[in-house]
Amino acid sequence: MVTFNQRLSNLIKTKNSNLCVGLDMDIKAFNRDQVSLSDLEKHSRKVIEATGDLAVAYKPNLAFFERWGSAGIKWLENTMELFPRDAIVIGDAKRGDIGNTALHYAHALFKHYGFDAVTINPYMGNDSIHPFIQDPEKGVFILCRTSNPSASDLQDLKIGNIPLFIKTAEMGLKLNKKNNVGLVVGATAPQEISKVRAAAPLLPFLIPGIGAQGGNLRQSLEAGNVNGTVLINISRGISFAGDMSFSRIRSAAKKFLEQMRFINNG
Amino acid sequence: MVTFNQRLSNLIKTKNSNLCVGLDMDIKAFNRDQVSLSDLEKHSRKVIEATGDLAVAYKPNLAFFERWGSAGIKWLENTMELFPRDAIVIGDAKRGDIGNTALHYAHALFKHYGFDAVTINPYMGNDSIHPFIQDPEKGVFILCRTSNPSASDLQDLKIGNIPLFIKTAEMGLKLNKKNNVGLVVGATAPQEISKVRAAAPLLPFLIPGIGAQGGNLRQSLEAGNVNGTVLINISRGISFAGDMSFSRIRSAAKKFLEQMRFINNG
Repeated sequence: MVTFNQRLSNLIKTKNSNLCVGLDMDIKAFNRDQVSLSDLEKHSRKVIEATGDLAVAYKPNLAFFERWGSAGIKWLENTMELFPRDAIVIGDAKRGDIGNTALHYAHALFKHYGFDAVTINPYMGNDSIHPFIQDPEKGVFILCRTSNPSASDLQDLKIGNIPLFIKTAEMGLKLNKKNNVGLVVGATAPQEISKVRAAAPLLPFLIPGIGAQGGNLRQSLEAGNVNGTVLINISRGISFAGDMSFSRIRSAAKKFLEQMRFINNG
Repeated sequence: MVTFNQRLSNLIKTKNSNLCVGLDMDIKAFNRDQVSLSDLEKHSRKVIEATGDLAVAYKPNLAFFERWGSAGIKWLENTMELFPRDAIVIGDAKRGDIGNTALHYAHALFKHYGFDAVTINPYMGNDSIHPFIQDPEKGVFILCRTSNPSASDLQDLKIGNIPLFIKTAEMGLKLNKKNNVGLVVGATAPQEISKVRAAAPLLPFLIPGIGAQGGNLRQSLEAGNVNGTVLINISRGISFAGDMSFSRIRSAAKKFLEQMRFINNG
């Protein structure tokens, strides 16, 4: 049995890649009037096929599937069959609920859809996270310091001298008894990444916010990729690169991967 | 145009009821080996039919539908057709994501399913809530002080002398520009309800945690039902009352409603 964090770490080394491709299938990105569910299905398949050997992980965000109701969830179920066998597939669900309810979310995400890991919101505390970390082969990434402009509203509030996001990181550390807990820290706040890395030297980080949201790749890797394991998530910058053709998607993914390797070797 | 909070307040007065019936269709509650999706569909229909004239609101929790994937979401879509025309239907989704993604969740919950209101997680700050409060006729209940044992992990942390859940209440107040913002405060923490009520005298409260979770009805109403509008949510105590027959479900709902009226008149 290999724990989730160990599997992630091994895969990053084997593939020499920190790339996580985010699947945020936003109709607005298509820049045309009519976009059907079938267009979205085809495009998500194209993104996966164009990046399979480059990406360590994929991160479908559930909002873009839920938007279409049961038909969208059927599309998610179909999409789960398309990922490369070795890829880590992270359900970006940001769920959080009382223990008994969280059990049902965990069942949906791990058993029904078959995600390898999920993102979790920590506001309701440790018992809302427990149901997701019972199986060492399944992982969580707990929202710690997020990439959006208003992340600071609550996350940066200080408890004594310690910001809330560090309290969250400490909770994540405590919950990591089975080596399957990681943290989400946004690329838009590199100083905060450094602080979280100091508080949790070995936990994996999932870092979104590069590209459309303006995060800096070099700063993110330099701050986060010390000791611990790092996934850099790119969504729109790959999925909707250029004319959205197979070759443009693939070359965008390659370019990001080359930049990561260059920075890591530097 | 009637704002969400005004509609809620009017309905509570007209029906002389604070009752919100939670639909947490948990297979474990059936106490038997085999429970099919069709059994759950039938039972949720029964609960709605048995309580339509007593309840002001219904609160389906999405976890119990998502557990079944696209078939479960189809069941949710069907269930949305069954609620009484005047009832307020709250999607207990506890979503929270960056603004562009939250737009898609808001589309799913308000436009696709047709909920009147949704529960929202505040950890990512105000821009994750904005997409849900653009339409004054649609409301949100922001998680403030929840009913689960580990609610205290983050929510009770003190920023200076002020607990985080009061900071959340203050954020809710600021966001209530269109009279469509409420707060979730758990019945298991009546002292915290009083504090939130003092910080937000007029915001509607959605109070879960009565019954199976051990919350106290009298304390919750006395602490919360001052000036502002209060919904008391009961899930398992009604949906799975006694032998789960129509009459037992109805008499459980009636009994809770009579208790509420007695306390409010007391």
